[in-house]
Formats: sequence, structure tokens, C-alpha cells
Amino acid sequence: MGICGLGTVASGLVNIINRQSALLRDRADADLRLVHIGARRDNPVCDISPYRVSRDIFQVVDDPEVDIVIELIGGTTAAKELVERALHQGKHVITANKALIAEHGNALFALAESKGLALRFEAAVAGGIPIVKTLREGLAGNQIEGITGIINGTGNYILSEMASAGRSFDEVLKEAQALGYAEADPTFDIDGTDAAQKLVILASIAFGIPLAIDAPFKEGIDRVGADDLEYAQELGYRIKHLGIARIAGEKIDLRVHPTLIPEQKSIASIDGVLNAVQLEGDAVGEVLMTGAGAGAGPTASAVCADLIDLARSLGAGQNCAIPALGVPLAKLQARELLPREAVTTPWYLRIIASDKAGVMAEITQLLGEEGISIESLIQKAPERGETHVPIIILTDAAAGGAMQNAVLSITALDAIQGDIVALRVEDFEEHGS
Amino acid sequence: MGICGLGTVASGLVNIINRQSALLRDRADADLRLVHIGARRDNPVCDISPYRVSRDIFQVVDDPEVDIVIELIGGTTAAKELVERALHQGKHVITANKALIAEHGNALFALAESKGLALRFEAAVAGGIPIVKTLREGLAGNQIEGITGIINGTGNYILSEMASAGRSFDEVLKEAQALGYAEADPTFDIDGTDAAQKLVILASIAFGIPLAIDAPFKEGIDRVGADDLEYAQELGYRIKHLGIARIAGEKIDLRVHPTLIPEQKSIASIDGVLNAVQLEGDAVGEVLMTGAGAGAGPTASAVCADLIDLARSLGAGQNCAIPALGVPLAKLQARELLPREAVTTPWYLRIIASDKAGVMAEITQLLGEEGISIESLIQKAPERGETHVPIIILTDAAAGGAMQNAVLSITALDAIQGDIVALRVEDFEEHGS
Repeated sequence: MGICGLGTVASGLVNIINRQSALLRDRADADLRLVHIGARRDNPVCDISPYRVSRDIFQVVDDPEVDIVIELIGGTTAAKELVERALHQGKHVITANKALIAEHGNALFALAESKGLALRFEAAVAGGIPIVKTLREGLAGNQIEGITGIINGTGNYILSEMASAGRSFDEVLKEAQALGYAEADPTFDIDGTDAAQKLVILASIAFGIPLAIDAPFKEGIDRVGADDLEYAQELGYRIKHLGIARIAGEKIDLRVHPTLIPEQKSIASIDGVLNAVQLEGDAVGEVLMTGAGAGAGPTASAVCADLIDLARSLGAGQNCAIPALGVPLAKLQARELLPREAVTTPWYLRIIASDKAGVMAEITQLLGEEGISIESLIQKAPERGETHVPIIILTDAAAGGAMQNAVLSITALDAIQGDIVALRVEDFEEHGS
Repeated sequence: MGICGLGTVASGLVNIINRQSALLRDRADADLRLVHIGARRDNPVCDISPYRVSRDIFQVVDDPEVDIVIELIGGTTAAKELVERALHQGKHVITANKALIAEHGNALFALAESKGLALRFEAAVAGGIPIVKTLREGLAGNQIEGITGIINGTGNYILSEMASAGRSFDEVLKEAQALGYAEADPTFDIDGTDAAQKLVILASIAFGIPLAIDAPFKEGIDRVGADDLEYAQELGYRIKHLGIARIAGEKIDLRVHPTLIPEQKSIASIDGVLNAVQLEGDAVGEVLMTGAGAGAGPTASAVCADLIDLARSLGAGQNCAIPALGVPLAKLQARELLPREAVTTPWYLRIIASDKAGVMAEITQLLGEEGISIESLIQKAPERGETHVPIIILTDAAAGGAMQNAVLSITALDAIQGDIVALRVEDFEEHGS
């Protein structure tokens, strides 16, 4: 096999291979040999002296001794070219590249399937948690009804720190960058793109639908203020940035956004850089998996799982028994997405209103006009010298469209200051579809 | 395929097959056909009219149309004969029978391996949680260092109810029986046998050792009193009945007993009939899986996973790519077990002593003589009219042998009433080995 790239994940993989080649060989029951590494520069955290090294990653792909290419360069341009070239040359591919799979998976899997080759991607979602294998194999007897995941460790770290220490978003983000949890450009972690890519992959396997990267509705963690985290806790909730995918009648509900969850749900207590994915199957009920969602060791662990799977298959004289997305591509069926306006959940609203009689009546009336009823309400006392007070409302289940209308009309009231924060609540009850 | 048995799990399986045959066919990419069910009597909760039914389960095995036998009769006598007969006839076997695998697995896997047949058992451990697959495949790149599991749902239900509602063991057990969580004869759930069988299976896969059913040290939940649950909570702990398997230097530490766990560990909050298994791998770190450990749907879900795996392999023209225990049997290496006397952990002690000056000094001196130091101590005030008071001690890490000696000599003091309760504390720190 050959490895392309020598960043964090690749160095973790090389370290596993160096440390426990005998174990891997026993488990794969095959002579797994790393022969070639392609990397623009060396990485001081791992010893690559036993291996051939090229500065041009394509030399790894073209190496006739390499029959499994492990793509760990990231990005979607060179990586796509590299994976295509490997498949065209009849080589199996393992990748940790969520963006590549989410954006180009349909074409790449088709190419792999047409050639009877494996294209594996366990490491692309939730790091060390073997969630792809669990969905595709471990729960294959189930109609999967829902997936709820904390699948972006950086975002979860930021929200957890803000919630537990009452710190500001900017301050925690800077710290996360210093600790190496967040990239220098953290946009994709913060705006939900990273989580959306992972969710699309999971949804495809769970529901047998083609990868639909532009599909999910997404909102990032920057919509959540320290106040909201505090109010949510007062109400018995935690705010987590969730990826949610669920069957909604004939349609699929697919979305990524900050969400209030009841504090007694296990997933509400998953803090820090951990990832957690809750799967709901018609036979198995709820299964929750928790573990490290990123990092050299955990992600390399997932790459190794693919590698050993593949070696076991090859050893048994067979190319790839398990379809990449759980069913042969021809069996995937596109399904319409539930528009965000139709997605019905309870809501959390934070409204800053002037501290005058009659305002509350106006707000509740406007909600009522959209058919939205109030589950609970907190009005805070005004701070000294303030003329405005925060009003926190939990509503009963309401469709996104109705809530959007209500928020617009409430915002237009004279008594309202600034923007209204409206966050969905996931109480894990059915609210129709 | 044919199913032997038509109890809870089998009826769950038939219901899955009846409900979603198209889904299973797509995922297996093969024409999975249930042709024959063997059962002494029908089961009203599932429709078996589409299938051939025999009152003699061996007719299922002998049916030439059956090439996968699903053993769901339980027990170890007829089940062993049945599985052997199926393998001798060249048929793959799937079983949910933990006792069969734990007690006769070595011989049965050898038979299956010699014939190139699959003998799968995902449903044997932790019900619907795909823990066997996760250990054997999903984390195959890791040296597994430890497993900590709540793997007996009945026992966990009883302890959870006792802890949350302050109810007595006998009362909760009766309720568990009425609810169908506990068998009419609940001995194996209560004395730890059921958990020990499951732990032996997990340890074998995790550490590459032969199945060693007589090996683990086991204690049941009947050693825990309602008082202990309460005192543990005061100290910031929960009491769970755990299966623990871990690498201890050259040896393996394997045990099943009630354990105090810090309340902030996720596994401490797994209540009711849920199962949870925490895996510690050198690359991945901690992975926790939680889900239903028993029941028709969850267990049948696990059987389906084996079935689809097998069908995918057969469809790819190959008998069994994945060794039953993760490595070929010849690669399994027996390892010595750490004797319980050498297993070193902190301890919880509940001592009923007469409320007199000097008693505490005697107790602490006897502990000191065994080199056991005290981490914290609570002495309760005497109840009205009582001359004896409970003393609760948390110790620092101490070997089982030293603690046994200390408990014997403290029990022999005049001031001590009745038996001392000594429970291990699992604080997930290293205490040497």
C-alpha cells in the first residue's frame, strides 16, 4: 500500500503501522506492507525511513508495488484527480476526505463500482467512531429512521467552553486555534459546512439516497450567544450543534444547526472535542456512539479499519463485498428533501423588548396568529439602567415557515430591540412531518 | 436460510424479514430467502405462514434448501449438536447464543474454520449494539487496552431502580420478572454468569486469546445493598455491575462485579435495561457504545447484521473473509490471567461498628498494616436507639489480597457487627498491574 500525504492523519497511520505491524498482519491475515509515501515534506512526528518516499504524490499511485492507495492529502482538487487515477489503474482507495466524498462521491463510487474496486471512507465521518461501518453493516437489518450527531468537534468544543465557563465565542475560538482544535481558517467548522458534509454521507448510507451535498439546510454556531447557553440551561436544556437526518414521510429531513436538547438525553452531555452519533433504527431502537471525532490516532484508527477490511476481503479472493454506501449504486433512490419551512419542531426564542406593559400581549398575539402556542416563558428583570429586558420563550412544535413569519412580525414591533434569536428545540418527540 | 427456534429473538427476526424483505435484499444484494423454521410451537407475535415449519429443528438443518442456519434455541446441549451438524453439512451458522459461544466456541470455531464456513454471533453480546463487529473490524487497527461494560440489562435495571427509587433488591427483582426483563430463574443475571459469558467473548476478540469461560472472577449484584447505592452517591459515585477486561502487563485482568464509578463518567449514567460498552484503544482512545442489550428487535437486528454480512460475502464469491474472533484461530495466544488477589483498585468499604471511642483507630490501623491508605471516610451518626453506626471508607488503590486480609482482621474485631461490604472502585486511572 501507499500513503499520499503526510499531515496529522497520515503521521498517525504511519505510527500505528510502525508500532504494531504484527498485530495488523494477524488481523488482516495478510502481509500488509506500506511501501511508498508521497509527501511534499517530511513530518517529524513519525519515522518514514523504512519506506520509499516521493515528493510527487502521483508517483505513489503509479507505483506498481502499490495496490491500495490511501489518500490523506485533503482538499477536493488534487485529491479527486489522485483517487480517479488510482481507480483507473485498478487500485483500491481508502480516504479520510469528507469533502471529497460528499462533493464527488457519486461519480467516484460509480467509477470504483464499475471496476469492482473498493473506495472506503470510514475516517471521513466522526473520526475514530466506526459510524460508517455501524450504519452500513452493524445496523443493516434496520430501517434507519433518524440520525442525530455532534459531528464537528471544534464547534462542540467552543459551545461546551462557552456554556461551562461563560466565555465569549471569540475568546474560545482563539483558544481552540491555539490548541490545534480549530484551523487557522475555521469557517467550515463554524458555519456548519464540515458537519453538513459528514451528515450528507451518513444520510446517504442510512436512507439509500445519492449523496446530495447542496441539500442540507445549515446554520453555524456563531448564531449562539453566551446568554442563550445560560437561558437554555435554566430551562433544562443544552445547546449543541447537531446534524440531523430523519425520515419525514416520503421525504428526508436534513439539517445542521444549533439545537436545544433536553439535558437528560445522553447526547446533551457530550462535551469538548468529542463526537457522538445517535442512530434510531426500527428494530434496534436508539444506539449512541461516542468517541474522538478527530486527531491523528482516532482518524488513523478508522483508516486502519478500512485497510484491514480490505485486506481480509482481498485475502479471501474477493475485491469488495460491501457496497460503498450499503447498497449497489443502482439501488440508491433520490428522495425529496423536506423544505426547512415545513420542518416542525418546538422553538427557543430570545427577544429583547422594552420593559413596558402590553409588549408581552403583542408578542403572544403575533405568535398566536401563526398558530404557535407557548410552552414556557421567562421574562428577566431589567438590569440597572436598562429599559429593555430579555424575554425567553419555548414554544410548542411549529413549522419553520410559521416561525419565520412570526419572527418577522415581532421584529417589526416598536418595542423590540435588535434581532430575535430563534433556535430549534430537539425533544426527540414526533411532531408530524 | 432456516431459523431454529421461535422464541423472542426468532419472532423479532421473522418480523424484520416480513416487514422489510426488499430492504434486506438491496443491502445484501442477494435473494435472502427464509425457507424453513423449526420450532416446537408457533409464536403468536409473528406470521410464519409463508414458510415451511417443522416441529423438529434438525429438519431445518438437514433441509437441502437451507445454506445458512440461524440458531436461536438457546441452551448449550441441543444448540451445540445443531451447530455442529450444520457445520458438518457445510452450512454457515449464525447464533445469538452467548453460553454456547463462551463454553464451546473454541471447538465450534475450529470446526467452522476448518471447513471455510462462517459462525457468526453478533447477537450474543450486548443485544443490538454491534460491539462484536466494532471490536473485530471497526477498531481492528488498535491494540485494545481495556473494555468496561454494562452487559447485563437485567442487573442494570435492578441496580438503577434500587438507586433512583431506594427500593429493595427483592422488590425490584419481582418487578423485573413481571416486566419480562428477568427470567423466572434469574440466577445467571444476578450472580454474574451472563455478564461473564459475554465478557469472555469480548476479551477473546479484543486480546486475541482463546475463549476461557472459567476464567473471570465474578460477583453478582446481590452483594449490593440499598444503603451502598446511597452512600456511593454521597461520595460522588454510582454503583454499576461491570464486566472489565484489560491488559495488565503480560497478563489479562478479567472480572465481573459490582463497581463504583465516578458519576461524571458517561457510563455511570447508563440506567435501566440499557447496555453500554466502553472500549479503550491505543490509537482511538475511548469509544462508548450504548443501546438496548436485549429484546426481540435489538437482538434480531444483530442477527440481521450477521446475515447481511454473510450474504454480501457469499455474493462476492467468498465464504468468510473475517475470522470469527478477529484473527485466524492459530494466531490466538493464551495469556495468563491476573489473579484476583493481585488486581489493584481503590475500594469502598461499609463497616458496621459499635459507636465507641477507639474503634476507628483499630480499623485504620488494620488497614495500615496491609499498606492500605484511606482516601475518604464518612462516619454516620447513630440512629436513635442504635449502638452501632455505619462507617464508609474509600481507600486508595490496594490489591485484592491485601484487602481480603484487612477485611478478615477487621471483621474479627469485637466492635464490628456482621459482614463488611467491600466493593471495588473503578476510577479509570492506572494503578499498576
